[in-house]
Amino acid sequence: MAISLYAVSVPLCKQMLNSLSAILNKAQAHASAKNIEPDALLQARLFPDMFPLIRQVQIATDFARGICARLAGADVPSYESSEKTFADLQALISKTLAFIDGFTPAQIDGNEERITILRPGTPKEKKFTNQAYLLTYGLPQFYFHVTTAYAILRHNGIEIGKRDYMGA
Amino acid sequence: MAISLYAVSVPLCKQMLNSLSAILNKAQAHASAKNIEPDALLQARLFPDMFPLIRQVQIATDFARGICARLAGADVPSYESSEKTFADLQALISKTLAFIDGFTPAQIDGNEERITILRPGTPKEKKFTNQAYLLTYGLPQFYFHVTTAYAILRHNGIEIGKRDYMGA
Repeated sequence: MAISLYAVSVPLCKQMLNSLSAILNKAQAHASAKNIEPDALLQARLFPDMFPLIRQVQIATDFARGICARLAGADVPSYESSEKTFADLQALISKTLAFIDGFTPAQIDGNEERITILRPGTPKEKKFTNQAYLLTYGLPQFYFHVTTAYAILRHNGIEIGKRDYMGA
Repeated sequence: MAISLYAVSVPLCKQMLNSLSAILNKAQAHASAKNIEPDALLQARLFPDMFPLIRQVQIATDFARGICARLAGADVPSYESSEKTFADLQALISKTLAFIDGFTPAQIDGNEERITILRPGTPKEKKFTNQAYLLTYGLPQFYFHVTTAYAILRHNGIEIGKRDYMGA
């Protein structure tokens, strides 16, 4: 008995991306109900040199695509990060969900010991086994950006709770 | 090939608890250097109905102990949550690290399909396989509270970055 690599990647990313989508819908509804300029939330940050909400969501989806693609040995798609609205972010999340849902357990399982190289050929090159990449690098950062998006919205008074973060 | 249940639990919790300890040390040093009352950070929140830093750290350690103990089929120790200072939080993290380090792969691996029941006999009872408990419940919440502790400190101007969150 053991856990499959797929089980520790695709479904976890899906759980959190679905939560993130629901949380952003609540934020958009709140902005609309209170006549809040959407950018007041989309561009909100917890500190001036931190990324704003919109970028946190982009990076969370980057990690979801990067994790699933790398574990499958597939190319990591390059997205433009040109999102400007809540609708754009929902489209980004949907596109990311469709992308990661395209991977099957057969494409990912068994690749634990394959090598993933981040930023190859640069001074910041990092080499990992897939398992180490997922567990010590990809997942902690993925959760970091989802939680930070949540924290920015919570800090701005959106009525969401842990249940929204955890998903259905 | 597959991932062992131990590999997805004890080392991940250790990575983040060590980071959390280092981050709290930086916060304490910052408070000391700037003559900031420690409680201004320890009791800081991102929103009035969110938990303050001290509670975020307590809950993060609760999850670390709960995850590792449940997966091993051991009793989850009950701690007092009486921490009041940075030193208390460091002691709590050390005690938690020692506790989870006490589990061996042999105690955890192979327990994927055993049933974990949270809050048994209450209206909020939840039943999971160990694998589902870890992946869909324990880990997302553990990362949530570590990240929220980080976010509270970052929001209060502590000079920490993603590298501190990720650890050495």
